[in-house]
Order: sequence, then C-alpha cells, then structure tokens
Amino acid sequence: MTDRLAAGEFEIIARYFRPLSEGEPGALDLADDAAVLEWAAGQSLVVTTDVLIAGVHFFPGDRADLVARKLLRVNLSDLAAMGAKPRAYLLSCALPADVSEGWLTAFREGLAEDQRAFGVVLVGGDTVATPGPVTLCATALGEVPRGAALRRNGARRGDIVFVSGTIGDGALGLKVLCGEARDLEEESRAALVARYHLPSPRLDLGLGLRGIAHAAIDVSDGLVGDLAHICEVSGVAAVVDWARVPLSAAARGFLTAVPEAREAVLAGGDDYELLFTAAPESREEVATRAARAGVPVTEIGFVTEGDGVLVRDATGSPIALERGGYSHFAARAP
Amino acid sequence: MTDRLAAGEFEIIARYFRPLSEGEPGALDLADDAAVLEWAAGQSLVVTTDVLIAGVHFFPGDRADLVARKLLRVNLSDLAAMGAKPRAYLLSCALPADVSEGWLTAFREGLAEDQRAFGVVLVGGDTVATPGPVTLCATALGEVPRGAALRRNGARRGDIVFVSGTIGDGALGLKVLCGEARDLEEESRAALVARYHLPSPRLDLGLGLRGIAHAAIDVSDGLVGDLAHICEVSGVAAVVDWARVPLSAAARGFLTAVPEAREAVLAGGDDYELLFTAAPESREEVATRAARAGVPVTEIGFVTEGDGVLVRDATGSPIALERGGYSHFAARAP
Repeated sequence: MTDRLAAGEFEIIARYFRPLSEGEPGALDLADDAAVLEWAAGQSLVVTTDVLIAGVHFFPGDRADLVARKLLRVNLSDLAAMGAKPRAYLLSCALPADVSEGWLTAFREGLAEDQRAFGVVLVGGDTVATPGPVTLCATALGEVPRGAALRRNGARRGDIVFVSGTIGDGALGLKVLCGEARDLEEESRAALVARYHLPSPRLDLGLGLRGIAHAAIDVSDGLVGDLAHICEVSGVAAVVDWARVPLSAAARGFLTAVPEAREAVLAGGDDYELLFTAAPESREEVATRAARAGVPVTEIGFVTEGDGVLVRDATGSPIALERGGYSHFAARAP
Repeated sequence: MTDRLAAGEFEIIARYFRPLSEGEPGALDLADDAAVLEWAAGQSLVVTTDVLIAGVHFFPGDRADLVARKLLRVNLSDLAAMGAKPRAYLLSCALPADVSEGWLTAFREGLAEDQRAFGVVLVGGDTVATPGPVTLCATALGEVPRGAALRRNGARRGDIVFVSGTIGDGALGLKVLCGEARDLEEESRAALVARYHLPSPRLDLGLGLRGIAHAAIDVSDGLVGDLAHICEVSGVAAVVDWARVPLSAAARGFLTAVPEAREAVLAGGDDYELLFTAAPESREEVATRAARAGVPVTEIGFVTEGDGVLVRDATGSPIALERGGYSHFAARAP
C-alpha cells in the first residue's frame, strides 16, 4: 500500500489548489487540518456532496476543465434546488499516480473559471493516489435564511408543475457521444454534447423561488424520476403533458430522427434544471421571478391526489416508461 | 457508462444510511438535495474531508465495520486538531456494483457504533457504483467558538513540543500486517494492528487545548513530517529527543526485534495523536487538562529559531531520516 502521487500531494496542493482558496481567510491557505468558516446569524448552513467517476459519470478522455466544472455545477445545482446561495466547497481527488501536469492545469483552470462564475471558493480537500479510475468528490456549502430553504416535500394537490430551461439535452448529448443519431446536423449534436458536459445550475432561479415554490428538486435522475421523488415525499401524484415538456431545437431534431429517444428525454437525467411546484395563483409571480433570474420556466403539468407520475401524450393516453413513473401511478379521485 | 449498484442507490440509502441520520432534523431524512443545519451564533463552522481507498489506505479484505470507523475517525481527528466539537458528517461511497449485503451491514454497524461514541450524525452523501476499488469520502462538520480554533501556525521559540498517547503503533501495525516482525509475541502484534485499524481521535484533548496550545496538528503524515508542517507555517524549528518519544510496550518490543523500524515510528504516520506546542509556563495547565481529557501527554522537545525538525538520539547526535525532518534542519543561534 505505497501508492503515492508522483507529483507529491503537498506539491499538487500548493501549486494547483492553494491559489483557488484565495479570498477566503477561513480556508487557512489549505495549510491546516480543517477550514474555519463564519456563519452569519440567521443563516442556515446548506451542505451537499456528489461524486463523479471516470468511466461512470464522465469519459476518461473528457477535457479536465469540463470535468472540473461539471463536478462543481452538479453540487451547485443541489444548492439551487434548496434555494441556497453558494459560498464554498471542498474537493477530494483520487488520481492516478502518474496524473499529468497538463491534466491538473486544465482541471484547476476549470475550477477557477466556475469559482468566478458562481462566487464560490475552495476551502479544503484531500488529494490521494488511486489504482482505480479518477474519482472526484466535491462538498458544496451554501447558506439560506433560517426556514427559507426549498424542500421536496411540500407539493400540494392543485399545484402547477414547472420546469426551467429545456429537458433531455444532457441525456441526448450522452447518446450523441455514444454514437447515436449520426445523421443529426453537426450543430445540434454539438449543442447536446455541450449540455451534457456543462449543465447550468439554476442558482438565481432557486433564490427567486424562496417563499413561492411548494416543492423543488434539480433534475439529475430524470424528469419523471425526480418528479416521483417530490410526489413520494409530498404524498401526492403528478400528471405531466408530454407536449408541454420544453425541448431545445436540437432535442426536437434528435427526436424526429430517433422517436424512441423520448424515453431518454423523460427519464434520462443529467438536465440539472429546476423542477418545482407552486399554487396556480402564484403563476404570474413565478413568471416574474423566472424572468428576473433570466431563466425560462414552463408549466408541464399539475399535482393531484394519489401517488406516482403519469405522463400523457397529446391524446391524453399514458406514455409507458421503462424507468420511473407510469407503472406506479395511482391517482385517487379528487 | 451504465454502472449501477445492483442493490440500487435509493434502496441502499433507505436501508443502510437513512437510519444513521435519525436525531438530526436538518438531515431531512437524506431525502432532499442537501442538508440544512442551524449554526449557533458565535460558533464557527469547522469542516474537513478525507478519502480512504481499498488497496491504498486499507486492505480490500479488511472488516467493513473497521473501515467505516477508521473513515470517521480520521476525519474527527482533524476536528480534534482544530479544537472543534464534531456535529455531523457527509459520506460518499463509490462501491463495486455487486457490493454484498454483508459488507453494507457491517459498514453501517461500524458507522452507527462510532456515531454513538463521538456524538455525530450522518446528514448527507452520495452512493455510486465504481469499476475501481472501494473509495470512501467523508466530510466532517464541527463547531468551535469564534476565534478559538487551534491552528498550526502559532508555534513560538521556547515552546515545549507535546504529543498525546503513543507514537508509531499505527505504522508498526501496518508492518505487522505486511508480514514483518513475525517473531513478536502475538499480543503485541494484535495491539499494533488494532491501533492501525482503529485510531482514537483526541477530541476531548483538542477541546481542552483551546486557549493554551500555540499550535496543534494531528499526526497523520508522521511525527516528524507533521511537526515540520507546524514549523514551516510558524516560521520556527523544533528539536525532538528520540528517548522521550512515548512508545507502547508493543512498539518497544517491535523496535527491539527490528531496530531499523525507528524510521517508521518517527516518520510513518497513521498515529492520529495530537502534536502541539505550548509555553513552558503552561506545562502544569497542559497536564491538568490532559488528565481531565483522560489522555496521557508527553513532552518530547522544544521549539527554536530556524527551520526544520531535528531528532536527537540519547547522545545528542542527530538521527538521519529518509523521510521528513533532519535534512532540512537549520536552527539559528538564539
């Protein structure tokens, strides 16, 4: 058990990671046993962690800067779903012993770019050698006024189901990378792949939904699966109209070429959009706040009694899905 | 990229991990995107993260309950070194797709046992499949009154260097597991291996050292290497007398059989004892507080001007080490 990073753990920290902690005195220059952060009175700590593994969550040959940014963004997306403002993150990297300077430099550059974009700073971590695939674990810390966090468990019968942005691009981007839909025009293929590599955490929208969304989640497991999570913990059912699910032009092109990809759009995950419910009387306020956040928001269905998620086609017939939703649907008469 | 846990991520969370979140409402039953924790006014958040990998930090066949407890304890040891009181932790597990119920049950039992022992609770995490070795990442959250955290950078010329417990057992335990010192009596071998598997985070001592230790660190990289960390960030040098380094009976037996193992004792790491400096006039108070914490504390040397760490033998001659310390030592005349 002598795996060691050829470049040296301390050298890697000093050269690549310490500069990312600048501006946060509580990071203690990454030179102590832990970070010490001050938390303002009345602000709750919101904390989440996510792992990305080469060969599982990204391709071993993916650009290191994009991997770094996706790692940060999937964690920030969890904070967005809670209505939290991000502050800092910790980063644990298990790397091959012979990891290259080029990889580390690109990885650091990706982190630096998104630190600037999202206002977060590195405050701690661990860097070790692994005989296995690159394994990255980030823990994001955010804050929210006490009692104001968005939750998954507040969806109510009669609520409208909203989703931000467009759905399915990430899952279809993965299909493009796996060689599907080769006839799709290059521009569309590139757009889908870009969305797979680089999701957009909807932080401003999350902040805007405080006090108005009854339930919220980020779409990481798939639209239907994540809506099912909301339904389960809220004790309700939901109905979604396929025709209203917002699709990008590229996704529409993909579906024209490969209609059976509808399953991936509905159940594929990797969207990192916000899925939330709110009362019908909040409809205008939701639109106002979404516009302020600069993020399109679309009504895709409603909450009802029962359990599970039903997706209907344009004729009102249920769409059967292998993963998630339909088979569990059991709406009760109102 | 379809690695999935055969047992199912959600099933594993519900069955093995959710019960570990009981008692902390902010964990939200591990059923939300993040945990939401309240932080008392005047308390700083202390946060650290550590990774353990099968085949690097533990043996693939090690008992899962011991692996779980070591994972928690190495993180808690970082909190101890900051003088922080532990509160909660997050846990990310990258597991083989076919991880067994038996492994998961033992892993959970280990976590549950040490949660009770150290007063922490699970508040979040991520569970994924990996084609590589078991890779575990824990992030520990603790609290310390604002301004009271112990740091590494406060060692002053004239300070005494103290260390808790005994040094070297962990590194020698690893040697036993690797087949060295086969003639050592079984009881000693077992004692060293037990210390390697299960370090004792010195949390009560860390709390007791608030306001009295000038610098503190936990011994994870090795006595000399960690003292060198203190010296480097404090801008001082340190002298350690080998004869005063506290050794267990088992370690003494090992060194009698294998004298060259002195290097492993001084530079081997995995002790998780607290190494700290304090003014000579605090000597009695240190002893009082250590007694209150129930942890033996030993004076092993002193802080002086210069840089680096010098370890002297009984004749006062420097002990050369391959790893850490001596070669960098350059004390300046007082």
